[in-house]
Parts: sequence; structure tokens; C-alpha cells
Amino acid sequence: MSAGVAPNAVAAVSEARQWDRLMQMAQLGAIPGDGVNRACLTDLDRQARRLLISWAEALGLGVSVDAIGNLFLRHEGTEPGLAPVLAGSHMDTQPNGGRFDGIWGVLAGLEAVQALREAGIATRRPVEVVAWTNEEGGRFAPGCMGSMAYAGFKPADAWDAVADNDGVTFAAALRQHLALEADIPRRGLGVVDGVAPFAYVEPHIEQGPRLESGGLDIGVVDGIQGSRWFLVEIFGRTDHAGTTPLAMRKDAVQDMLRAIAALNELTHDPDDVLRFTVGRIEVSPNSPNTVADRVRFTIDLRHPDRAVLLARGDAIEGVVQGALRTCTATVTERFHALPSRFDPLVPDAVERAAAALGLKALRMTSGAFHDAQFLVPLCPTGMIFVPCRGGVSHHPSEYSEPSQLAAGARVLTAVLADLANR
Amino acid sequence: MSAGVAPNAVAAVSEARQWDRLMQMAQLGAIPGDGVNRACLTDLDRQARRLLISWAEALGLGVSVDAIGNLFLRHEGTEPGLAPVLAGSHMDTQPNGGRFDGIWGVLAGLEAVQALREAGIATRRPVEVVAWTNEEGGRFAPGCMGSMAYAGFKPADAWDAVADNDGVTFAAALRQHLALEADIPRRGLGVVDGVAPFAYVEPHIEQGPRLESGGLDIGVVDGIQGSRWFLVEIFGRTDHAGTTPLAMRKDAVQDMLRAIAALNELTHDPDDVLRFTVGRIEVSPNSPNTVADRVRFTIDLRHPDRAVLLARGDAIEGVVQGALRTCTATVTERFHALPSRFDPLVPDAVERAAAALGLKALRMTSGAFHDAQFLVPLCPTGMIFVPCRGGVSHHPSEYSEPSQLAAGARVLTAVLADLANR
Repeated sequence: MSAGVAPNAVAAVSEARQWDRLMQMAQLGAIPGDGVNRACLTDLDRQARRLLISWAEALGLGVSVDAIGNLFLRHEGTEPGLAPVLAGSHMDTQPNGGRFDGIWGVLAGLEAVQALREAGIATRRPVEVVAWTNEEGGRFAPGCMGSMAYAGFKPADAWDAVADNDGVTFAAALRQHLALEADIPRRGLGVVDGVAPFAYVEPHIEQGPRLESGGLDIGVVDGIQGSRWFLVEIFGRTDHAGTTPLAMRKDAVQDMLRAIAALNELTHDPDDVLRFTVGRIEVSPNSPNTVADRVRFTIDLRHPDRAVLLARGDAIEGVVQGALRTCTATVTERFHALPSRFDPLVPDAVERAAAALGLKALRMTSGAFHDAQFLVPLCPTGMIFVPCRGGVSHHPSEYSEPSQLAAGARVLTAVLADLANR
Repeated sequence: MSAGVAPNAVAAVSEARQWDRLMQMAQLGAIPGDGVNRACLTDLDRQARRLLISWAEALGLGVSVDAIGNLFLRHEGTEPGLAPVLAGSHMDTQPNGGRFDGIWGVLAGLEAVQALREAGIATRRPVEVVAWTNEEGGRFAPGCMGSMAYAGFKPADAWDAVADNDGVTFAAALRQHLALEADIPRRGLGVVDGVAPFAYVEPHIEQGPRLESGGLDIGVVDGIQGSRWFLVEIFGRTDHAGTTPLAMRKDAVQDMLRAIAALNELTHDPDDVLRFTVGRIEVSPNSPNTVADRVRFTIDLRHPDRAVLLARGDAIEGVVQGALRTCTATVTERFHALPSRFDPLVPDAVERAAAALGLKALRMTSGAFHDAQFLVPLCPTGMIFVPCRGGVSHHPSEYSEPSQLAAGARVLTAVLADLANR
């Protein structure tokens, strides 16, 4: 079956229903300016999951949860023993997040399965809609814990001791969460009965400006650039701002300036492909008339080419150390994800579906990281991007048109009809 | 009467008593590492004031408080109508402060008055020991509110709306404070009955390394360098760190780097006299994977030469604006105190007293600002510095030897015996 031959299912996708569900979800954790703050494993997160489950049960899907809280909604195949096709994303948000990042991928999966069922289209393979635990990492760092544990990238207890700002550990929050979802059938973590998924498809807003500025409908994502996160801590000495000559100071702010200036040179890229960001700075004691004795700052480094990412990232510590004039520093790598290339199976299916639906599509690499990259070693993987206004995400003003989101759900429906019948 | 002729009073200064009182005060707000955190107009501040008052009343001093909470302990003169000599400092500390900054100046005043009385030395003029409200500005900015209001530099209600980190306004904190000290006689704010003080003397730890490194005992302070404080706010745009090309960003952190680098050039001084400090930086949203849309940073600029301070300070806004590449910025001046030169009366008396006591003294300009500078328009003013270890202050490790502090109190005793008999 090709994408062109599921017209009834594609037609059954409801733009209004999907939008209405998105707006209902956006109420759970609503913040001013149309934003959403729904951290993982909170009561708001659980309310969102219960709402999703209510829609899934109304459709007759089988609901289950694994040991790290990943939630699965199963549409049974005509040959239930076959490897399922997995589609979904995550339901948690950034602290100052929007209404579409993550949650749309889950609701598009539900919309696609509902469309298949309403069109009476049976699939050989089961289709499972998945909501991964803690993609954002806003409450418990790093993100993508659910997909990393599912794929065996890390053991499920790897983050037990990670604490949120209130001192609650991930282990404690997860224990409480699973107790509150004890009525939901439990499934094994990861690949069940040795049957890896047949494929994984993740719909997501682009979080960048390329589709919108190109007047395009669909991003056919063929890979995810690599990311490395570092924490730099600079140690100097406090001194009185009025009395201590500059030559006698160990000013952590001034050595931070030198370090970042040197990193700007290290990461300079005339093609503007490499991404280097210092997004977080903490100064201590942070008093106007006291020379700072400590500065912590983060580095977010990304590139689609593994060799570039490794070379530049490995050079960071030496460049920081070489830039310091009076202080000492430590450099710690906090996150390391090499670039992912997707098997052509899913991207090709997405591209065919978009073409069959008359949508303008572009092959592209994702600049943001996603749960999808941790599925790559497990099964053919891909993503479907839709445009978002101004490329803005992780902000209350994040926005995609109902029609753009519906187009994405139609492509997903066609792709699932295709892949689940192979 | 010259400094050389009050030997009985100088001999009555008790190193042990002064040290014991300092250590009792250090218990009120004690923090780890021998530090003190005693913010103004808090219960801890009031406990310290009650302890001081108990010692003053045991001595028979007259206690009064004015409308901004400045506390006065009066040793009556044989001619009570004469202008008094004022001596003292402040009792509040920095949040991460030490045991000597401020409080020693108040306790040295008490020690000197006690020594005069125990030696049976009457003075023509009254001597008033003063504890100024909110010198540090740690809870309510700016500092020196008590001395500024006393000297008429600002009206007493100028800071009513200033709020602390918990949202408590200065007006509310002061109202509560005065209610809790309603049993203490109230005096008029500032110059009472048109009689300005005859002189003001403020003992203080140096807060710099010059006395210690020179093997000296006493700093004869002849002026205070000027200070100007600025707040710079830079406005950019949030963007996703993984998806947004650097050329498309308005990164407030990167424009902050450019601004501070340009300010480093503006304030460069081959003689290392000018003090330029960026001690506080706040980044928003301060997330590792989000380009910052706002940065606020402070500038503390100081110089003993009025012309230099004015020229460099006035150039700051233009330099910041010229350094920005993609963002906008505002520059606001938050504090403006021109350099002060002291009338020779007090410095000369301090110098004579130190010489008579065989102490090694140095004429110097204060790098830190002090309540003393606001008394300059009112009466002849001066300060007595004693060494502090490593020049460190505003830190729990701040330290002066009991013997160094006793030497300072002896000089003050001789100076008061001198000035209060003129």
C-alpha cells in the first residue's frame, strides 16, 4: 500500500478536532501570553495524560505504561505479533513554553489512528502512539530520559538522584507518579518480547524559520544534528570594588569574558552552520560592589557533522583554560549526543506522502534534538516537521496554524497506513 | 588640650572589653566561617541596637533615635549648648559580611566615651556616638540612607517605595522598626536646633591592603573617592539554540560581552587608580538551550579625581550603545557621589594623636564610600582606618587583630578629648 492509496483515512483527519484537543491540553498549565508550563511528573502532567487516555479509551485503544512512565496507546494490527509502528512525541513543556512543542506530536498520532479507524482501514502491524517521559529536561536534567531508557541508551535508574529545584529527586517523583497511575496496565521497559518497533515516526513543530520563510508545508527530517553541552565554572576571589586595584584582582567576570571571547573564535563558522550558545550565566556573590569570585556558564554546541562536533567540542576545555588570566576553571561535559542520520525508510515514506497530498516538502536536518535520535539504533526512524510562526518555540508565543498542523497529521496518517501494512 | 595630654583616657581603653563586645555583636546574625549577615531594620539589627543601648545606659549615656532610625548615645559636655562632636559608623552588614565592617566604628565610639568617663575627663562639648541606618544597602538600595537623610542630602521619605527581596518596602520596615523602638526618646532628624556638629569622626577597617602591606597602624583618611553606579539592561530576542543561525540572532549575552569589552577600554587606567567593576549579571530566561533575550549588569566606577569620574562616567552610555551589534540597551545611573575632600581639622587631629601614641600612620584616600562623605557639607569630617587582613572585607573571613582595633580606639579617644575641648 502506498501513501496515495489511503485517501479515506487522510480525509478522516479532522483539523477542528485536533485543534480543539490541543487547546484543551493548553489549559493544563496555562501561563500568560498563551503559554504553557507543564513540567514532567507533576499533577498537571498527569491531568494531561488522563485526558489523553480518556480519548484513547473512547477510541478503544489499549493503554499501558512502562517503568519510566512512557505512555503507550495501542491500535491493534490484524497480525498482532508483528513489530509495531510507533508514533508520538512528549507532553512536558519548557517552564516558559508554548502550546505545540511535543504535545502536537502525541495528538497527531492519536488523530492519525482515529482517522484510520474511522475510515475502517485495518493495518497488518499494530500502531502504538507514544508519549515519552521528560523530553524537555526542564524539571529534571537532562531531557529525553524516557526515550533513552526505552532504547537502552541508559538504565532506567541512571537519573534516580537528579533533583528538581525543590530538592525532589527523579526517583521520588517517578515512584509517586507510578503509584498514581497504578490502575493503568504496566508493560516492560523497552523492546517487549524481543520485538523492536518496525519504525518510529515523530511529528513536531520545526522550531526554526526555514519552512515558513520558504513557504513550505512539510519538513522531511533525515537526521538530527549533534549536541554537546558543557558547564564552565570559573573560580576567582571576592574583593571590594572600591579598594582593590584591578591588577590585584582575580575577577571571575572578567575571566568569563576572556573565555567566551576565545570560544567565539573557536566556534566561528563562516557558513553559519555551527551553533554556539551561552544561554545561562550565574555570578557569585552577584553584588554590584564586590568583585565576583565565581561564575558558572553553560555552552550549547551543535553541528550536523560528527567530525566537526567532536573536534570543536574536544577543544573547548583547552581554549577556556588558555583564555584565563587570573582565575582557575573547570569544564564539565553534561550532555553528549552525536549527529543522527535516519534510515531512508521513514523519510522516503514521508516525502511520498507529502507529494501525494500536494504539499510542498523539504528534506532537512533537525537543529533541535528530539526523542527520535535515541530510537535510531533500534529501528528505522523519521520525523515530520510543520512550520511555526517566526521559527519561535520554547516561548508562549509559539504558534502553528490549525491548517498547518492538520496537514502534518494527514501526512502522518498516510505514512502510518503505508508502514503498518508493510 | 592636645592629643598628648589625655594619657589617662587613652590608658583606660580596654582591648579586651572592645573585643568582647565585638564578639557578642558577631553572634547576632552569625553565619558560617565567622561571618555575619545582619540586614538593617531586621530583628537581628534591633537585637544589636538593644545590646548597644544596654551598654550605653549602664554608662549613663543619653539614648535617642531619629525619624530614619539613626541611633545616638550622648555623653554630655560641661557646656551642653555647644555643638557636639559626633563619632560612629553603622551596624548593618553585607549579606555575606564580616564581624568588623561598620560595627567596630560604633563600638570604638562607645569605648572612647567609656574611657573618657572612667578617666574622669570632662569635655566642654558633648560627644555623641552615632549608629547610622542602612549604610550597606544590602537589603534596601542604595546604602547610606541614614547619613544622607541626616545631612539633608535627600528627604527622609526619598526611599519609601524601595522594596527588599521579599517585597517589603523601606517605608513599611521603618514604620515597624520605629514602633518597636517607641520606648526610646525621639529626636529631630538632622541638625537639631540649628546646631550642626562641631566635627564627625568615623573609625573603620581599611577594606584594602595598603596599611597591612606597609606595616602601618593607622590610616589618616583625608577624603573619599567618588563612586558612580549604573545599571545596564540589554534587550534582544529569545531563540532556540539549536535551530537559529547566529546571523539571525539578537543574543543579549553576546552584546553584553561587546559592551563590557568596550567599557574595559573606556576605563583602562595605566596607573591602576580608576576602579571599574561588573559585579552583578542577570540573564533571562537563563536556560542553556535558549538564546537570552535580556541581560542586566551593574557598573561600579570610582576615582578620587572629580574630573576623571565625571568624564568617564558620562561616556558610559555612549560606549555601551556603540558596542551593541544586534540588541538595544538602556543605561541608568543608580548612585552618584562625587569625591570628598575632608577639612584638615579632623585628619590633622588624627595624625597628631597617632604620632603622640607612637603609631605608624599614613594619609590616604578611602576607596570605599562611607557615611562620612555625606557629613562633609555639614561639619569638618574625618576617618580613622585600621588594617584588615589581606585587605578583605564584605566576606566572613574579614579580620583585624584585637590590638589593631584597640590602637584605633586609642587614637579616637585622644581625638575626641582634643576636639571636644576646643
